[in-house]
Amino acid sequence: MSLTPEQQSQIEAARATPRPTLRAVSEGMEARLYHAAPVLDHGFVRVIDYMGDDAAIVQAARVSYGAGTKHVQNDEGLIRYLMRHWHSTPFEMCEVKLHVKLPVFVARQWIRHRTANVNEYSARYSILDREFYIPEPGQLAAQSTVNNQGRGAVLEGAEAARVLEMLKSDAGRSYDHYEAMLSQEGQQGLARELARMNLPMNIYTQWYWKTDLHNLFHFLRLRADAHAQYEIRVYAEAIAEAVRDWVPLAFAAFEDYRMGGVTLSGKAIAVLKRRLAGEAVTQEDSGMSKGEWREFMEVWGV
Amino acid sequence: MSLTPEQQSQIEAARATPRPTLRAVSEGMEARLYHAAPVLDHGFVRVIDYMGDDAAIVQAARVSYGAGTKHVQNDEGLIRYLMRHWHSTPFEMCEVKLHVKLPVFVARQWIRHRTANVNEYSARYSILDREFYIPEPGQLAAQSTVNNQGRGAVLEGAEAARVLEMLKSDAGRSYDHYEAMLSQEGQQGLARELARMNLPMNIYTQWYWKTDLHNLFHFLRLRADAHAQYEIRVYAEAIAEAVRDWVPLAFAAFEDYRMGGVTLSGKAIAVLKRRLAGEAVTQEDSGMSKGEWREFMEVWGV
Amino acid sequence: MSLTPEQQSQIEAARATPRPTLRAVSEGMEARLYHAAPVLDHGFVRVIDYMGDDAAIVQAARVSYGAGTKHVQNDEGLIRYLMRHWHSTPFEMCEVKLHVKLPVFVARQWIRHRTANVNEYSARYSILDREFYIPEPGQLAAQSTVNNQGRGAVLEGAEAARVLEMLKSDAGRSYDHYEAMLSQEGQQGLARELARMNLPMNIYTQWYWKTDLHNLFHFLRLRADAHAQYEIRVYAEAIAEAVRDWVPLAFAAFEDYRMGGVTLSGKAIAVLKRRLAGEAVTQEDSGMSKGEWREFMEVWGV
Amino acid sequence: MSLTPEQQSQIEAARATPRPTLRAVSEGMEARLYHAAPVLDHGFVRVIDYMGDDAAIVQAARVSYGAGTKHVQNDEGLIRYLMRHWHSTPFEMCEVKLHVKLPVFVARQWIRHRTANVNEYSARYSILDREFYIPEPGQLAAQSTVNNQGRGAVLEGAEAARVLEMLKSDAGRSYDHYEAMLSQEGQQGLARELARMNLPMNIYTQWYWKTDLHNLFHFLRLRADAHAQYEIRVYAEAIAEAVRDWVPLAFAAFEDYRMGGVTLSGKAIAVLKRRLAGEAVTQEDSGMSKGEWREFMEVWGV
Repeated sequence: MSLTPEQQSQIEAARATPRPTLRAVSEGMEARLYHAAPVLDHGFVRVIDYMGDDAAIVQAARVSYGAGTKHVQNDEGLIRYLMRHWHSTPFEMCEVKLHVKLPVFVARQWIRHRTANVNEYSARYSILDREFYIPEPGQLAAQSTVNNQGRGAVLEGAEAARVLEMLKSDAGRSYDHYEAMLSQEGQQGLARELARMNLPMNIYTQWYWKTDLHNLFHFLRLRADAHAQYEIRVYAEAIAEAVRDWVPLAFAAFEDYRMGGVTLSGKAIAVLKRRLAGEAVTQEDSGMSKGEWREFMEVWGV
Repeated sequence: MSLTPEQQSQIEAARATPRPTLRAVSEGMEARLYHAAPVLDHGFVRVIDYMGDDAAIVQAARVSYGAGTKHVQNDEGLIRYLMRHWHSTPFEMCEVKLHVKLPVFVARQWIRHRTANVNEYSARYSILDREFYIPEPGQLAAQSTVNNQGRGAVLEGAEAARVLEMLKSDAGRSYDHYEAMLSQEGQQGLARELARMNLPMNIYTQWYWKTDLHNLFHFLRLRADAHAQYEIRVYAEAIAEAVRDWVPLAFAAFEDYRMGGVTLSGKAIAVLKRRLAGEAVTQEDSGMSKGEWREFMEVWGV
Repeated sequence: MSLTPEQQSQIEAARATPRPTLRAVSEGMEARLYHAAPVLDHGFVRVIDYMGDDAAIVQAARVSYGAGTKHVQNDEGLIRYLMRHWHSTPFEMCEVKLHVKLPVFVARQWIRHRTANVNEYSARYSILDREFYIPEPGQLAAQSTVNNQGRGAVLEGAEAARVLEMLKSDAGRSYDHYEAMLSQEGQQGLARELARMNLPMNIYTQWYWKTDLHNLFHFLRLRADAHAQYEIRVYAEAIAEAVRDWVPLAFAAFEDYRMGGVTLSGKAIAVLKRRLAGEAVTQEDSGMSKGEWREFMEVWGV
Repeated sequence: MSLTPEQQSQIEAARATPRPTLRAVSEGMEARLYHAAPVLDHGFVRVIDYMGDDAAIVQAARVSYGAGTKHVQNDEGLIRYLMRHWHSTPFEMCEVKLHVKLPVFVARQWIRHRTANVNEYSARYSILDREFYIPEPGQLAAQSTVNNQGRGAVLEGAEAARVLEMLKSDAGRSYDHYEAMLSQEGQQGLARELARMNLPMNIYTQWYWKTDLHNLFHFLRLRADAHAQYEIRVYAEAIAEAVRDWVPLAFAAFEDYRMGGVTLSGKAIAVLKRRLAGEAVTQEDSGMSKGEWREFMEVWGV
């Protein structure tokens, strides 16, 4: 990740002057504000603003006049209860605004989460920087042989070198031509809104992204999951670290009930009950398909 | 409007201890936080939290690293440009959370604005207070004779007195019976989730309501409008006063382009152009229906 | 439930004239179209329109040119896979439009599901009918002593009779006064938008409600659940019957994975694994609160 | 635009077998179903399904039991009234599902319209085809000198030829390398989810996109507008043609009030009133900025 000295000094200026507020304050988030947490080779996540804290969740759930109970234990119990019973609206009462720099192909996955507000840097209006995502060697994975949308073993030797060379040279050449098409020296220069189409999807873009805590948890559950593509998962993990500092009680409940939890089908419940009663159950008499059974066994083993 | 001493002291406690923050701060909103602005006979609007200010709109529009320009005039010009061209996403980057106490029939109109987060006081879980909206005499209006969903002249004398008497006595009796059904003295007591069905729709409820500035402007355009029902319009007006203090530049643009503006159809443009060219135009040769023509004339006169 | 002869004949007229279409057709839904399935004493659910069927879910998941596979078994496997892995967007490709008549206090719960389109009968514009929900004796339940938002034993004898009498007489009197306030005989008549505030929340309203299958499943999971209030649950159950006829494969997957499934927290997984390994676990060493443990035991027993 | 013979025969098969339905039928849309309307060099828009027609808008607005009035004139008047007064919910009662093939940089603009359902062809799971958008010579426009996000004169001669050569050769080479990285001949083959990052943003993708008529009108107003980028505008125009056939009354109202209409600010109203009164107004005494004045003059001239 690289910030220009000017960008760095803008961040420092924004952090230099605390002002008094009567709003709910999360010390954990104040420590993070405006700093850029690096992700991938040129990306980052910056917390720009936040609204609410753990107490605000409780306060909203109770539609109260004051700031909720003074007893952290009660707040924790209520927050766990709300999470367990899918009472999502109190979590919607917290909001966060992030500045994210990310490759376009990651942005295209991310934007599918629609309940959020987005302002993206416009390549129609402005010129994009020469910055591309080039995977670390350890992330140059082969196509999975068992999962159409997954990764297998890491590429090695000549194959890895060839891939890296292609990614780098194609990105470089495409950007050279992007600049050549835009140039107004000795020519008119192609419109920005057209020239951008020549850029590959590993170029970096950036946006302001704002969402509420309930929808953020949903995003994290899907994108910090082991089955998510690595390149978006690292963003989700960076955000998760910030959320842990922001609303520690809600995040702990989220980790227990969502990230660390599983959903069992009616068939899976029946199998577990038979097992608890001492019965040995096989895929054939489980009522599950082979795929379901494999996923079931990944959690519950023999 | 009436707050209990305990509620009042909770509000004062919340206002007593400013804390430092690095976030964007709006002095105009800080002065309002937690105070209850009275609306109707028992209702109120309280600002519980906010995110962002005028500069945050500019910052998001530019996807910038710092806090936007230092030149208020530039910010104003950009904000007006965004409003004029329906660039709504930068306005979505500001968020506000309100605590509102309001009659149920008003809440039922309000909730139709779906892009918002809501936590309502639960009459399934808790017991509602004995508080009903009874209109001021000046608001006891007759059914409009020209508009199926509007008001006409104010009722007077015996008719007004009879209406007030019915509203008060029915509300009182319904609430007496609500309590009688709930009572566990000498009986089991009906479930709260059932007993509530006996309450009339002028009883007060309350909720936490959170939305972004773009959707709030949409709400205000429809509900602070002269055609909105008086009982929701006064809430919209109370909120508008808070928004004016919160984001003065954005609110001024909203007033000019939305509240103070009009939308002209293609037919209306054609009529105005003929008029500007000196031609007299009548409804018959305007291409408009009688209803459209009447609305057109309300703005443009003879 | 009661329809006027005129309404009944409108329904019959709508069903009388099938027309050819090239769109996906669900025979199960065609048989239901426009009919009113009775719910509670005066309510109903009518299917007005639908888009898509099981094959349309598969077709969207594959972004295909044709109508999906011809092999029902493949479709079923894919639909179960999508449901199991929370791939919600293919289910969003089916849409349904319902006409529902329901008590206002039920409508107020229902409307909290925001991802839907709603047109409600306007009591600002029109006059509501004299129809109120009065519970069956078997539904006159006492407040639960263990759950603040639940029901306990059924009321009996004099207490039940007293409750029914209050509900009926208050509803009748409020409606009499509603009519008296509106009347234009010998007086101006109060505006409809004001008079409606005198009506109790068990009066019936009606609306057109349109949503996609994914959001409908979410609605059904929460509202057809045993913990939902009876008066909304019966609507959810009536809708579920229609969905079963409409998209039988998707509904079966929904029943297995959502309605018949459970979500286990990380703590609950650990307890079950210890049990499977032969260990006896108590609440004290489960890491769960008493409430969580009770809910856990309801599913998994001793 | 090019469909394979297999795709073409799937489309013909889907059109071959009309089935009876009791639902609202729009003859105009039936004639379009499944056909691919060509857009740009390889793209298309296909109507896959629709719900509702003009009468369904009226029926929902009235929450009626039958199919609305039999008098087209009444329906037209009501639809125009609803459009004029921003009563958007009845238009939400119509829904349409499209299959669209479009360049990625167009898809990235399109997806910013969030109130829609989307299933996109997955380049994580599948391999994209070798199809890129290469502009027609007449669309190879220079950067506008007056508008940062607009186009100026068309490029000519050597400059145009150079641009086309770059676009074609970069696309071809990037795709060659994409295939080379994926290839499993003599090597493992890079994961699809990684290889796709090498592709430029003029490659074609495709998706199923479903939205309601109100949100579709909003999309069309912004994207069929003269200020929209040409490459998305042609899609909007193709969709608009289908909507005109689907709901002719609603579309005519949309054209008059939205596409052909303008919004005037309070300042603009004041200027027009002064002009109507015979006064000559200049930018200096209009209260408008230079930009606003220029836009005002574009509509109202001298």
